[in-house]
Amino acid sequence: METITSRKNALVRRAADLSRAQARKEAGAFLCEGARLCADAAESGLNIREAFFTEKAQEKYAPYVQAIQKRAAASYGISEPVAALLSDTKASQGVYCVCDLPAAPPLLRFLERPAKGHGLCLERIQDPANLGTVLRTAEALGVETLLLCGEGCDPFSPKALRGGMGAAFRLRLYHLPSLAEAAPQLRKAGWRLLAAVPDADAEPIVALDFSRPTLLAVGNEGAGLLPASIAACDGRVTIPMRGRAESLNASASAAILLWEMMREGAEHDG
Amino acid sequence: METITSRKNALVRRAADLSRAQARKEAGAFLCEGARLCADAAESGLNIREAFFTEKAQEKYAPYVQAIQKRAAASYGISEPVAALLSDTKASQGVYCVCDLPAAPPLLRFLERPAKGHGLCLERIQDPANLGTVLRTAEALGVETLLLCGEGCDPFSPKALRGGMGAAFRLRLYHLPSLAEAAPQLRKAGWRLLAAVPDADAEPIVALDFSRPTLLAVGNEGAGLLPASIAACDGRVTIPMRGRAESLNASASAAILLWEMMREGAEHDG
Repeated sequence: METITSRKNALVRRAADLSRAQARKEAGAFLCEGARLCADAAESGLNIREAFFTEKAQEKYAPYVQAIQKRAAASYGISEPVAALLSDTKASQGVYCVCDLPAAPPLLRFLERPAKGHGLCLERIQDPANLGTVLRTAEALGVETLLLCGEGCDPFSPKALRGGMGAAFRLRLYHLPSLAEAAPQLRKAGWRLLAAVPDADAEPIVALDFSRPTLLAVGNEGAGLLPASIAACDGRVTIPMRGRAESLNASASAAILLWEMMREGAEHDG
Repeated sequence: METITSRKNALVRRAADLSRAQARKEAGAFLCEGARLCADAAESGLNIREAFFTEKAQEKYAPYVQAIQKRAAASYGISEPVAALLSDTKASQGVYCVCDLPAAPPLLRFLERPAKGHGLCLERIQDPANLGTVLRTAEALGVETLLLCGEGCDPFSPKALRGGMGAAFRLRLYHLPSLAEAAPQLRKAGWRLLAAVPDADAEPIVALDFSRPTLLAVGNEGAGLLPASIAACDGRVTIPMRGRAESLNASASAAILLWEMMREGAEHDG
């Protein structure tokens, strides 16, 4: 395995550049960091263009490194200074890989398919760590359908990947330019659309029956859902709170809403 | 109002030093940052020793600044470089105050009181942002009793305060050296103790009846609850998951567990 020690190496520079959303788009690739996360990428069947390991990492994370190498088109050793260039964190594990961005699943086919199960629409989420956490929660609770609506942060940014523990590798993420515009088609396919809002006069989440196919729309951390999106939904739903109204953060409220939506399944499991 | 422009000013240096846990303990004080958070501290009735405002902040956050000034024993203008010294964030709002740490509520009296309602035991939480988020969620959902067990991070550190949106100002936080040791006394007072664990053979949270006084124990992010703490509880409870078992992060799982425990109340509200 060749070892790269120059921070000016072209492969390394291109990999480091993938921290920018625009660069990811142009290259059709993203940079993945961390032993476990890179092994998750390998396991999920993503195409790995290059893998990079420090010497320390090859010892410390040997089983992960082997699993990654097996799937990578090319593997390189890297020096610590090169690793620092690739790292988004202070405590780098020294394991990185450049992977093909998964092809966006075909939205049109999804819109034509009859509604089934439960889904989450995330509209204009701004904080990548929040987006990652919510995707991770959605995966854990078994939410089948995920729609990213409007201009939000990228689920393949380093922070979103870290927060998501690789959920983005395993979930099918549909990109929807506008929830309001797609609403009639979604409804025609059989989806009920519910807008999550922090309003005391909205339907409390515990009062709803989730036995029918439902898409729950959750908005931007500060501003919530767009007014047009709320208007396009079939109803507004909220978490009844006892303390201060604005007291739940975005990922905690998403966790509670998703849990409540998926709860019936959990009851059957129990 | 006197303006401090030197980063060597004794008041400023003492305030900046409060980012260290040991300094907070010795001074019996903590440093609060941000217009809203400082106003929350003022509103909650905490004793404010000193308040610091940049010129820009005095304009931009005038209503907050006035509310803080009204409660502060002393107020000072500060230059931007001084503000940078006090700030824990990159985008500082230029509003700070030094507050007395609230007196720890009397643990012995709590242990002697008959159990009532629902409570949360947080054992050895290491990440201050997580601790803040969980306290914020607990407040929003109306959890009445909060016990911090064992050696964990400080709810009055800058990161914990920020994540908690001031929940620590309004909640009564009891410090319990050891959950296992206190368990017999808690049980005698009428509490049922439940250990949250990620084990598939534990009782699913949906199957439990929370009409009786219950303390839910949640452990450290990586290692969970201490084995002795789990053994000292009356039962083990878990969130039934469909995706990967380790997929819920600490604050998402705490949100779901607390929500499920408090759900009956939410149903009555609804």
